[in-house]
Amino acid sequence: MLTSSKDILIEWGDCDPAGIVFYPRYFAWFDACTAGHFAHAGLPKFQMLKTYDIVGIPMVETRAKFMLPSKFGDVVTVKTRITEFRRSSFDVEHRLLKEGVLAVEAFETRVWAGRHPDDPQRIKGWPIPEEVIARFR
Amino acid sequence: MLTSSKDILIEWGDCDPAGIVFYPRYFAWFDACTAGHFAHAGLPKFQMLKTYDIVGIPMVETRAKFMLPSKFGDVVTVKTRITEFRRSSFDVEHRLLKEGVLAVEAFETRVWAGRHPDDPQRIKGWPIPEEVIARFR
Amino acid sequence: MLTSSKDILIEWGDCDPAGIVFYPRYFAWFDACTAGHFAHAGLPKFQMLKTYDIVGIPMVETRAKFMLPSKFGDVVTVKTRITEFRRSSFDVEHRLLKEGVLAVEAFETRVWAGRHPDDPQRIKGWPIPEEVIARFR
Amino acid sequence: MLTSSKDILIEWGDCDPAGIVFYPRYFAWFDACTAGHFAHAGLPKFQMLKTYDIVGIPMVETRAKFMLPSKFGDVVTVKTRITEFRRSSFDVEHRLLKEGVLAVEAFETRVWAGRHPDDPQRIKGWPIPEEVIARFR
Repeated sequence: MLTSSKDILIEWGDCDPAGIVFYPRYFAWFDACTAGHFAHAGLPKFQMLKTYDIVGIPMVETRAKFMLPSKFGDVVTVKTRITEFRRSSFDVEHRLLKEGVLAVEAFETRVWAGRHPDDPQRIKGWPIPEEVIARFR
Repeated sequence: MLTSSKDILIEWGDCDPAGIVFYPRYFAWFDACTAGHFAHAGLPKFQMLKTYDIVGIPMVETRAKFMLPSKFGDVVTVKTRITEFRRSSFDVEHRLLKEGVLAVEAFETRVWAGRHPDDPQRIKGWPIPEEVIARFR
Repeated sequence: MLTSSKDILIEWGDCDPAGIVFYPRYFAWFDACTAGHFAHAGLPKFQMLKTYDIVGIPMVETRAKFMLPSKFGDVVTVKTRITEFRRSSFDVEHRLLKEGVLAVEAFETRVWAGRHPDDPQRIKGWPIPEEVIARFR
Repeated sequence: MLTSSKDILIEWGDCDPAGIVFYPRYFAWFDACTAGHFAHAGLPKFQMLKTYDIVGIPMVETRAKFMLPSKFGDVVTVKTRITEFRRSSFDVEHRLLKEGVLAVEAFETRVWAGRHPDDPQRIKGWPIPEEVIARFR
C-alpha cells in the first residue's frame, strides 16, 4: 500500500501551558495528512470532491496513543497509509515520528460520503470507486 | 461516580466546508469537559495545578466514535465522568448528546503529571492524591 | 443600537506556553460573538443564511488591541454591538472585559456576501435587507 | 530589513462552511510567520526564550485586511518583515500572496516580554537586546 510522509514544524500556538502540543492539534494534523495522502495518490481533496461529487471523507471512529510529548520548535514526521478499503469506508494509520522514534500513533475509520438522496442536509456513505482504491496499491 | 454536564453551542468556526463540526474540535471540547469535571468536583484546573504542583493531566490515549454529525447553531450536551482511577492515571468517558441522542462518545486515559525530578523539561506520572480521588465518589 | 453580551470561560487549550490566551483564539470568540449578536437580534446564523440566501458575513478588515492578558480558568465577558451599517457592509465592535476592566477591544468590518451571479465559486457583497438592519435599532 | 517567506498549504480544517479560510486561522499562521522570521534571523523561538529569559513576544495590537479569500488546497505565501524596533516593542508586517497577488495584509505590534520582577504571574516589557535587533538589519 502507498505510504506518504509529511513534516510538521510545531508552533508556539500548537502548544499548551505545559509547553507541549495540545492534543487536538494532532488530530488536525492527521486530518491534513489523510488529505495529503490522497493528494499524493493523485487526488487533491478539492478536486476529488468535485470529480466524485462527494461532500467529504468524514471521520467515523478514531483513536490515538500519545507516547512522547513534543514542543514548539520540534519538527516531526507523519507517515500515513490506508490499511483497508471497504465498500464505503476505509481505515487510515498515522505514525508520528520524532527524531525517528514513534511519538504518536493514530487510527481512523472514515466514510466516503455524498449527499443523502432524500435530504441534501444529510450525508450518506457511497461506494468508493474502484479507480480511487486502485491508486493506493 | 460524579457526572458533570456541559452545554456547547456549535459555532460557524467549529465547522468545515461540509458544514459539520471539524472533528478535532470535539477533542478540544472534551478536554474542556474533563477540566470542567474537575472544577465540578471542586478542583478548578488552574488552582489544582498549583495545589498539587503538577504540570497538567496530559492525554495518554483517546478514542472517539462519531455517530451523528452536528452543525453550527446546534446546542449539544456533553456528559462526563471518570470511570477509573489507577495509581497515576485515570480514565474519562464523554457522551455528547444531540437532542438527547448519543452523537459522539469518547474515552480518554490521562496521567497525573509532574515535572521529572531529574529533568524539569520532562514530565512524569505522579501518584494521584487520595483526596483528589475521593472528590469524585 | 442593540448590545449583546457573552461570557467565555477560558480553557487550557486556549492558552499558549506562556500560560495566556493564544491571541487567534480571541478572534474565534469575536466571530462567535458576532454570530451571537445576530442571534440576539432574532437572526440565528444558520437560519439567517437560509432566509437571505447568503453564504456568510466574511471579514473584510479587523483590528484588536490587547491590554490585559487572560489565563485558563478566567471568565471574561464580551460586549458586542454593530456601530454602522452601510449598503453591503457593516462594522462591529467587541469589548472584552475581565472583572469589569477592558482587556481586549476589537473592530470588524464585514460584508453581507452572496454567491457571485457569474461564478458560484466567488462571493460578492449584496445589499443588506432593511428588515435586517431594523432589528438592531 | 530582513524579509522571510513561508509557504502555507490551506487545509480542509482551516476552512469554514463557506469553503474559505476561517479568518482566525490567518492570525495563527501570522504568529507562526513571526516565529519563523526570528528563526530565519538565527533565533528559533524555543532557544530565544531560553537565551534571553523572556516568556514570549505577545501581541499588543494587530490589524488585518482580507482582500481575497482562499480555499482548501490553495498554497499561499507569506512575506514577513519587522518594520520597526522600539525600546521593548516592535512592529511586524505580513503580506500573504496568492499566485503573486496580495490576498491578506497584517500588521502587528508585539512586546519583548519577561516576568514581572514583583510578580512572576505578570509579564512586563523588557528592553530588546541590541544584538537581537542587529540580526534583522
